[in-house]
Amino acid sequence: MGLKSFVEVPADSHFPLENLPYGVFKPEPHSPPRPAVAVGNHVLDLSVIASAGLFDGPILKNSDCFNQPNLNKFLELGRPAWKEARATLQKLLSATKPTLRDSASLRSKALVPMDKAQMLLPIVIGDYSDFFSSMHHAKNCGTIFRGPENAINPNWFQLPIAYHGRASSIVISGTDIIRPRGQAHPTGNSPPYFGPSRRLDFELEMAAVVGPGNELGKPIDVNDAADHIFGLVLMNDWSARDIQAWEYVPLGPFLGKSFGTTVSPWIVTLDALEPFSCDAPIQNPPPLPYLAEKTSKNYDISLEVLIKPAGQEDSFVITRSNFKHLYWTITQQLAHHTINGCNLRSGDILGTGTISGPEPESFGCLLELTWNGQNPVSLGATTRRFLEDGDEVVFTGFCKGDGYNVGFGTCSGKILPAST
Amino acid sequence: MGLKSFVEVPADSHFPLENLPYGVFKPEPHSPPRPAVAVGNHVLDLSVIASAGLFDGPILKNSDCFNQPNLNKFLELGRPAWKEARATLQKLLSATKPTLRDSASLRSKALVPMDKAQMLLPIVIGDYSDFFSSMHHAKNCGTIFRGPENAINPNWFQLPIAYHGRASSIVISGTDIIRPRGQAHPTGNSPPYFGPSRRLDFELEMAAVVGPGNELGKPIDVNDAADHIFGLVLMNDWSARDIQAWEYVPLGPFLGKSFGTTVSPWIVTLDALEPFSCDAPIQNPPPLPYLAEKTSKNYDISLEVLIKPAGQEDSFVITRSNFKHLYWTITQQLAHHTINGCNLRSGDILGTGTISGPEPESFGCLLELTWNGQNPVSLGATTRRFLEDGDEVVFTGFCKGDGYNVGFGTCSGKILPAST
Repeated sequence: MGLKSFVEVPADSHFPLENLPYGVFKPEPHSPPRPAVAVGNHVLDLSVIASAGLFDGPILKNSDCFNQPNLNKFLELGRPAWKEARATLQKLLSATKPTLRDSASLRSKALVPMDKAQMLLPIVIGDYSDFFSSMHHAKNCGTIFRGPENAINPNWFQLPIAYHGRASSIVISGTDIIRPRGQAHPTGNSPPYFGPSRRLDFELEMAAVVGPGNELGKPIDVNDAADHIFGLVLMNDWSARDIQAWEYVPLGPFLGKSFGTTVSPWIVTLDALEPFSCDAPIQNPPPLPYLAEKTSKNYDISLEVLIKPAGQEDSFVITRSNFKHLYWTITQQLAHHTINGCNLRSGDILGTGTISGPEPESFGCLLELTWNGQNPVSLGATTRRFLEDGDEVVFTGFCKGDGYNVGFGTCSGKILPAST
Repeated sequence: MGLKSFVEVPADSHFPLENLPYGVFKPEPHSPPRPAVAVGNHVLDLSVIASAGLFDGPILKNSDCFNQPNLNKFLELGRPAWKEARATLQKLLSATKPTLRDSASLRSKALVPMDKAQMLLPIVIGDYSDFFSSMHHAKNCGTIFRGPENAINPNWFQLPIAYHGRASSIVISGTDIIRPRGQAHPTGNSPPYFGPSRRLDFELEMAAVVGPGNELGKPIDVNDAADHIFGLVLMNDWSARDIQAWEYVPLGPFLGKSFGTTVSPWIVTLDALEPFSCDAPIQNPPPLPYLAEKTSKNYDISLEVLIKPAGQEDSFVITRSNFKHLYWTITQQLAHHTINGCNLRSGDILGTGTISGPEPESFGCLLELTWNGQNPVSLGATTRRFLEDGDEVVFTGFCKGDGYNVGFGTCSGKILPAST
C-alpha cells in the first residue's frame, strides 16, 4: 500500500505521494508562472512553500529556484537538490505532518485544484534531440520503406541514432496542432505535390529532461549519465509522413516534424520511477566501451494512445506499448550525445523516438499500425489511415505499484485544418 | 568615395560608416555585456549612446533594447527600428556632426579600441537550422559519395534542403575547437572505429540572423521574408566527416556537427549589404509558387578561407568563394522553413550550407578541395587532407564598394587535440 497524504488521492490517481512530478502553472490567467508538484487532484505551489520557508534542507534553504517561471534553475542544482526537495515534500504532504495540514491559510494559498491550474511548458528548452531507440520501430519503418532485407541499417546496432529537433515549436499538452502544408513526392513528371499534409501521424514517445548538463568538450560518462537526467515526460512527435518522405534525403527530417511537438505538463522524476526499473534488453553486438553500462536499466511504464475521432464523443485505444521495449537506454543516449564534446544544458530534452513494442497492437504510430496506410485501423464506427482534421490524440502512461500508480497524466493535441 | 567619419577608418577597413555591423562586447573582463557597432578600429558602445539619449527617433527613443546583454530585443523590433538606428548612428558618427565628435568625455566612454573589446555571441540563439543551398557543394558531395550519375537528389531542385543544427555548441570566433571523438565506419567485420575524428573539416558558410519571426502556424510569405532577416554573419560549420558518414543514415548529421559551430562577432545588416545585391541564379525547374520571389537576390560577398598550419607563422589562402553562388536565396530558405507553420524566433540563425563556387579553387571545405582526402592541398611547405591539431582556420568576407569595403571581419578557430 502507498504512502498516505492528508490531500485526497483517488485510488486511480497518477499522482500519489510516491510520484510528486514537477510542472509549472498559473493559478489565474494573469498570475506569473510558478513551479508545482502534482498530488491527487491538486497542484502544490512551490513558490508558496518556498516563501513560507518550508524548504529547510541545506541545499534549498536559501535558493530562489522555486521563485522562477520555469524549472531550469532547480534542474541545474542536480540530484542532491532533487532528493532533498522530494524528501521535504513527501514529509510536508504526509498525513501525519501538521505544518501544512493544519494551516488553513497556507493550504488555501499552496494547494490549487488541478482543474483551476493552467499548465505551461515547465522548462525553457535550449535544444531538443530526438533518438530512434526502439528496434521494433526501426525495423517496421525500414521494412515499409526499404523492404525486410535492409530494414535496419548496420549503424543502428552500434549507436543510438538521433537527429536535432526543433525547440521553438514544442508545445504543452492541450495545444491545438495546425495541419502543416508542404511539399510531397511528385507523381511521374509533375512538379511535387504542394498542400496540406495528407499523411499526418502521431509518434508515441517519451523524453528525458536534462539536469546539470556538461561543458563543451567534456563528455559525460555513461555510468554518470543518470545524474544528468531529472525525469521523463510523454511526448508526441507529430509527423507529416508525406513531407518527411520527400525532404529527408540526405539530411534527415525537417519540416515533416518541426510544425509541432507536444509534451505532457508533468515531469516524473527518475527517483519516482526507480521502483519500476527493469533490465534493458541484452544488446548484441555488445556496445562499444563508452556505451557499456555497469547496469543497463529501462522502466516498466505502460503507455497507451487514444484517438477521439472528429465529431465523436468516444475515444478509442489504438495502441498499448511500454517504455521497457527501448533497445538503447536513456543513459546511453545521453552519453552518446556528449561523446563528441557536445554540451547539454539544463532543460534540454532527449526524445526516445517512437516506442513500438514487438506486437502489432503495440506499434507506436499510424505509419506502423496501418502499415503506411494500407490497413486502416478501426475507431468505433469509423476508420483511420492517418489523422483527420478534428481528431484528438491522447497519450497516457503510468507505472503500476502495489496499491498506487506513478503516472504521467496525459499528453494530448487536436488537429486543426491547415491555414489557407 | 565613402562617407566620412570623425573616427579614423583605415582604407582597407571592413567597418566604414557604410557598414556599422552589430555585435556585443565587454569593455573589461567583469563588465556586463552590451551591444555595439564597429567603426574603423573602434567599437561604439550603444548602451552609452542610449543612456546619453542620442537615440532620439520615435521607435528607439524610449526603448531599452540597447541596455541588454544581447541583441535579441533590438532584432524583435524589426526593420523600421533597424533603419532608424542606422540613420541615427551614421549621423552621429559623421565627420560633420559635433555631438559625439566634440565631447571628449562622451567619446571616451562610448568608443572602445577594438583590440580592448572582448567580443561575445551577440544573440541568444533559440534554434539553428542549416541549409544546403550551394548547387556546387551538393554536386561535389553527391559525386564523392554516390558517383556522378546520382550526385544531386531530385528533391534538391524543388526545395531548400536543411537540417536542424545544435544551438548549444555555437561559439564566437576565436574559441578553440576540441577535436571530437566518436564512431566511424567499421572495416570488414571489426567493430566500428572509435577515437578522435580522423577527418576533421571546416565548412565555409554564412548565416542569416532572424529578426521578428512568426507565430506557430503562420508562415512568412517569401516576398516578406527579407523583413525577417536582420543581417548575416560568417559561420564555420566544423564537420567530422568520418563520424558524419557513419551516423547520418537515415536521420541526418548529428555528432559529426554538434561539437562546435563558430560564428563571427559582427552581424552585417541587410541594409549595409543592399548596394551589393545581385541577381540570384535562374532556377530550373521554376520554384513552386510559395518559393517564387518577385525579385530573387543574392549578395556579392567575396569569401576567403585561410589556414595557419600547426607550428607555422604564415597563413595560406586555400579557397576563395562568393555568397552569390548560392542557388537558394536566404529569403527562400526562410519562407520554406515556415511554410509548415514552424515558428522562427528573434536570434534564430539559418546557415546557408557550405558555399562552394563552380571552380575547384572555390570549393568551400576540405572534403571537396581534397576530393575526400585523395588530393592533399599545399600549405607552404606542408600539405593537408583534413585538419590537424594546432591548425587555425580563418574565414573572412567583404563586399567591395567604390572606395570602401563592407566587411565581416574574421571568423576563426584553432583545433585542439581530442580530450582523453
